[in-house]
Formats: sequence, structure tokens, C-alpha cells
Amino acid sequence: METEQTLLLIFVAFLAAKLGSEIMERARLPSMMGEIMAGIVLGPTIFNLITADAEFFDVLAQLGATFLLFTVGMETKISELKKVGLVATSVAVLGVVTPFVVGYYVSMFLFSSTIEAMFVATALVATSVGITARVLEDLGMIHTLEAKIIIGAAVVDDILGMIVLTLVSGIAKGDLTTFNVAVVVGEAVCFIAIVTILGTRVVKYASGKRNVHSDRTVNGAWAVHYSTGAFRRDSWLDRLTQKQAPFVIILVVIFGLSALASFVGLAAIIGAFFAGLIFSDTKETYELEQKFEPLNVFLVPFFFVAIGARVALGSSSDIIPFAIILTVVAILTKLVGCSLGAMTRGERTAMIVGAGMVPRGEVGIVIAMIGLSMGTIGLSTYSIIILVSIATTLYTPFLIKTVVKAEAKNKR
Amino acid sequence: METEQTLLLIFVAFLAAKLGSEIMERARLPSMMGEIMAGIVLGPTIFNLITADAEFFDVLAQLGATFLLFTVGMETKISELKKVGLVATSVAVLGVVTPFVVGYYVSMFLFSSTIEAMFVATALVATSVGITARVLEDLGMIHTLEAKIIIGAAVVDDILGMIVLTLVSGIAKGDLTTFNVAVVVGEAVCFIAIVTILGTRVVKYASGKRNVHSDRTVNGAWAVHYSTGAFRRDSWLDRLTQKQAPFVIILVVIFGLSALASFVGLAAIIGAFFAGLIFSDTKETYELEQKFEPLNVFLVPFFFVAIGARVALGSSSDIIPFAIILTVVAILTKLVGCSLGAMTRGERTAMIVGAGMVPRGEVGIVIAMIGLSMGTIGLSTYSIIILVSIATTLYTPFLIKTVVKAEAKNKR
Repeated sequence: METEQTLLLIFVAFLAAKLGSEIMERARLPSMMGEIMAGIVLGPTIFNLITADAEFFDVLAQLGATFLLFTVGMETKISELKKVGLVATSVAVLGVVTPFVVGYYVSMFLFSSTIEAMFVATALVATSVGITARVLEDLGMIHTLEAKIIIGAAVVDDILGMIVLTLVSGIAKGDLTTFNVAVVVGEAVCFIAIVTILGTRVVKYASGKRNVHSDRTVNGAWAVHYSTGAFRRDSWLDRLTQKQAPFVIILVVIFGLSALASFVGLAAIIGAFFAGLIFSDTKETYELEQKFEPLNVFLVPFFFVAIGARVALGSSSDIIPFAIILTVVAILTKLVGCSLGAMTRGERTAMIVGAGMVPRGEVGIVIAMIGLSMGTIGLSTYSIIILVSIATTLYTPFLIKTVVKAEAKNKR
Repeated sequence: METEQTLLLIFVAFLAAKLGSEIMERARLPSMMGEIMAGIVLGPTIFNLITADAEFFDVLAQLGATFLLFTVGMETKISELKKVGLVATSVAVLGVVTPFVVGYYVSMFLFSSTIEAMFVATALVATSVGITARVLEDLGMIHTLEAKIIIGAAVVDDILGMIVLTLVSGIAKGDLTTFNVAVVVGEAVCFIAIVTILGTRVVKYASGKRNVHSDRTVNGAWAVHYSTGAFRRDSWLDRLTQKQAPFVIILVVIFGLSALASFVGLAAIIGAFFAGLIFSDTKETYELEQKFEPLNVFLVPFFFVAIGARVALGSSSDIIPFAIILTVVAILTKLVGCSLGAMTRGERTAMIVGAGMVPRGEVGIVIAMIGLSMGTIGLSTYSIIILVSIATTLYTPFLIKTVVKAEAKNKR
């Protein structure tokens, strides 16, 4: 693709996304919906500007998702996540089993082959933590208890979803072994355990456990604190001659962990989330929020535009009824399953968590793409999954709002 | 390309670039040299990780160059540029004529065809304002008189270089007409005139000519200043509900002008430079330096890595003597030509300006790519131009340092 076209596409996509989000915000709706709409308008359905050959567009989308999830991780404390660990796990487990089982039986009626039905059910298992996080942020709920449970559950969901995908792909390819499954599970668990435990310690050490208000030494020399009666080594991050050294190191860690997560089979953005998690204690020290905001403002819209651009309605109006049925199944199964999982925290929390787990977003789309490339599902089934993923995503903000309002009414 | 590979490549390239720049800075050399070296190491010559099919990598490089040039433009005032307009133009003209004429006659000895020699001469005409700006920044000279002249001359050079390219391509294709040349020149001049004059006015109006210390109104409502006895409309930029609205608008303008510059045949980054120029008065108001720094830290390295990754030495050791001869020609012709153009400002300034105009950078590479795709030059000539572009780029920091030191000695 020529430079002119590339730049024009970036210009048009960014402008459309921001116009869309401006319109949505004025209508008091989450701005991310406007960005997805912009993607639908620019995609194959209407203007056909963002096509599958614009590989770079997916990379920009990936970068956007990476920085979005890093920011979400940065706003989350490990201690808080641990507190909701049990309930998040039960939300995730019930939120995986319910859509899979119900999805499978419904799909058996809709599709011809068992394996195709299994794949559709797998796509219904997905939860897009990126979408959910942005919706919660747009609604000003990112620091609530519900948000912690949802984000924790979405991470566990990603691991469980990966296991389901391994099982189903194994059945499809006929090479399913206990060993394969054990490797997948083992890698994911090791990744998370090592990153959380080791990562937090390394960051603490490297940042010299510095206090926000501690004196900064120029060029990061050894800082001697006689007052505390001890020689304390100042952050080695500050000893790099590099301009903006801590920020650079954090960027390196983000991409290192994203690539690593991706290699052990997790979503790459889960790696970015954990990078955010281990740096969450140093966010004031290095002014991370101010530094990552421009990256988010510039890159995150591409993530949502790319999701919208996956919709290709033109050729496939006959699939709409199927998509509607599966969308209803997708919404109800997550809502019921996840709410049940969080029932111990009261009805209001349970309902909000259930609603927050509904969006399939890009994870559903990725599973559809895998199924298509394996030859397990056909093009029409692929389109159905895409539509379900987008529909659940666009419906979630309304659902959360409705739940919050209804529960507020109940209280009175 | 798969997500894992993409992320791994981003991780490796970013890490290598920052390691390279850390090493260079410790050796008191410009960090950009380390980034180009990283590109050479990761490119086809050694690890072959960054190849021509990684289209997304070029887009990241393009984004890096865009933000780099916007920042340079933002640090430049139009009034200052006007002051050096005449001398910058004479630097550019002599810096185009000398390398073209000398380059053409030398190439006639080295290459078989007249048209190939013309193309090589055209590549020698290029000056990379991106490289020059970064070198000046690395050396802490960006706010000097010499820097203004160099940047002004580099912009004029881009226009003249484009005219030369149109002429030479026209001769090669056999469809050279006065009309073609007039259109190219007209478009470029109109672009610059309209952007500078109209752009500055619109920005002034839109930002409400606000003072840095003026009160900010929440949600950007109409601000009534009774104290001044007049109704004054507050910035409409502040009336958008959008988060970070001014920053978003500026991003839109950057990509709009880059795409536009690219369509009228100028380098896209010239558009970004002019975007910076028209916002240079509002940089404090909107804290633009703080907002663009993270984007620069993250994206600019890809620009330099991509330049380094263009080197493909392996197959072509026989072209080295040709490359050395042309590198010497490239350095001497710019140094002499541009210094002559700036003689009116004293010998020291003239020498520094001459040295600063030497790097061909990505502009030389782009011209080589055009020649190759037109079939005007062969693969070996292409490789020679790439080597000359990189060699002049890597040599420039040494040259500037030598000149500055020698002139300091002369003074004493």
C-alpha cells in the first residue's frame, strides 16, 4: 500500500472514530460504540475502505488494545484482585459452562455438523476484557467492586476459553490428547504465576521502592539516606542515560509480556494487562497515567474501528435470523451464568457482573477466524459469529445501564 | 503475519533500538545512530527479521517520522523561519544544483546509461529533514540559528528535489511536459502558502488566542469576560465533549496535512512539519510537548530502525567501491554547495549548515525505490543508493561535531 493511501486511511479512520465517539458522548452513550460504528461504516458493508489486506490496520488495532489493557492493569491492584479471586473464578467457570452447553445444543439445531456447533459454542464462551474495561471506564465504574470482579473473571475466562478452544480444535483435528491440554493449562498458569510473583518483586526492587515524594537524584547516582541510617541504592531505572528511561523500560516489558502471553496461547492483551498490574504501584512515581494517555487517545480508537470493520453484511442477509437467535443465547447465558457465580456478593453486584461479562468483542472474532482458517466452519457461520460478537458488544452498555437503574429502583 | 510474530518483532525492534541508543549515548554519540545500527543488525544483512513483507513496520516508521516532524515544526516559529527564508533558499538551491551536476558527471563514469546516472544524481539531491532534525536535537542545537536555516533549507530542498524527480522521471518515461512540471510546482507552493497563511489564522481563532494563564471553563461553555468590557467566545476546541479534545483535533490535522502533502507530491512528513508550525503558538496552552513526547519515545525509533533495515549487504560486496566513491561525492557536494549558500551568515554558520544538509536518509531510499519500481535503475544501483543514504546519515553527526570543534578552535 502506498504512503498516501496509508496516511489517508489513518486520517479517515481516526477522524471517523472521534466523530462517532463525540456523537455518542453527546447522546450520553459510551464513546466506544461510536468508534465501532465508525468501523462498520468504513468497513466492507458501506465504504469498503478498511479491508482485510490493510494488515497494518490490525497492527494499529493490536497496539491500541495493548495500551488499553496496560492502562486497565495499571488501575488494578493485585491485592484487590486477590480479594475477589474466588468469586471471579466462580463467575468465570459458570460464565464458560453455561454459554458452551446451551450454545452447543442450540447450534445443533441451527448447523449441520457437530463440530461446527462446538466451534460456535466455543466462540460464545469468549469474553472481551478490552471491551468490558472500556465500557466500565466510559460509565465511570472502573474503580468499583463490580469492575474488579469482572476484570478478574475476564482474565480467568480467557484461560478457560483457551482450554475449551484447545479441546475443540483437538477434536476437530483428531489429535486431542491429555498431554496437549495439560501443556496449554500448565503454560498459562506458569505464565501468570511467574509474572505476578517475580514481576512485582523485580519492579519493587528496580524502582527502589521509592516514595513518590523522595528526592530525585540527577543522573540516578547512588542516593545516600543518612536520615534512615542506611545506604539505599536509588532506582537503577534512573541510572540509564536514556531519555525517559523508566517509560522506555515499561514499554519493553509491555511488549515482552504481550509476545510471551501470545506464545503460551493466551491473548496477547492479557500479557499487557499483567504488565500494567506489576507496575500499578509505581504509577505515581513515573507519572504513567500522563505518559500513556496520549498513546491511548491516539491508538485505542483503531482497536474499536477494526472490530466494527469486521462486519460484512452485504452478501449474507440470509444469516440474520441465525445471528439474532445466537445473540439472544449469547446474552442470556452469560448474564445468567455469571450472575449466578457472583450471587454471594448480593443481587445488585451479581447482575452488574453478569451484564459486564456479555461482550464477546474481538475474542469471538479471533475464534471465528481460527475456525475459518482450520476449515471447521464455513463462511456463513463465520459471519454469524462476527455479528454475534459485535451485537453483544454494542448491547452491553445498554444492558449495564438498565441493570444499574433497575437495581437503584429496587433499593428505593 | 500472526499476532505473536508481529508483537515479537515490535518487542525486539524496540528493545534493540533502545539498547543501541543507550550504547551510543554512553559513547556521547547521537542516539539515532544506535537506532539505525539496530536496524542494520535486524535487517537482511544479519538476522533478517525485518523484511520487506512486514508492511506494518513501514507504517510504524511512517508514524514515527510524522510525530518527529510535527515536534520539530512545533519548536519552530514561522517568524523565525521567515527571517532565514532568503538564506535557506540559497542554501537549498546551491545544495540541489551542486550534487546533481557533480553527481551526474561522476555517475556517467560509473554507470552505463545516461538515465541511470540522472537517477543517481537525483537521489544525491535529497536531504532528510527528519534525520537532520534529530541529529540537531541529539546535539542540543535545535534552537540555534543554524538549525533554523537547515530546517528551512531542508523544506525548500524537498520541493526542489521533487521538481528534479518529476523532470528525471519525465525524461525516463518520455512524457516530460512543461505542464507537468508547472502542476507539481504549483501544487507544492499552493499547499505551503495555504497551510501557513490559513492554518495559522484558523488555529489562532479556534484556540481563542487564549493566554496560557487564562481560566479554563469546565465543558468549554461561553466565557464572558466583563473585565475586558467585551463578550469573548472561549475556544471552541474546549466545547467538544470529547476527552482531550484539542489533542484529538491536532492529531486529525497532523494526519490530514500529511496525507494532503503526500497527494500534492511532497513528502508526507513535510505536512506534519507544517502542522507543527501552525500549532507552535499554542504549544504551552495545550501542553503539546508533554503529550507528544510519549508518542515520540514509542514510535520514532521505528523510523530509524526501518532505515537501517534497508541495508542488504550480503549479495552485493562488489558494489562497495561504487558506494564509497558516491558517498564521498554526496558529502562533498552538499557540504560545499550548502556552505556557499549560507556564506552571508559567516563562515562558522555556513560550515555547520553545510554539514547539517548532508544526510540523505529515507528520502534517498524512497527515490531509489521509485527508480527500481520504474525499471530505470537496476538492483545493484538501488543497493548503492541505499548504502550512500545510510553512510551519509551515519557520518553527519561526526561531521557536525568536527565542524563545531574546528570552528571553536579557529575562534581562539
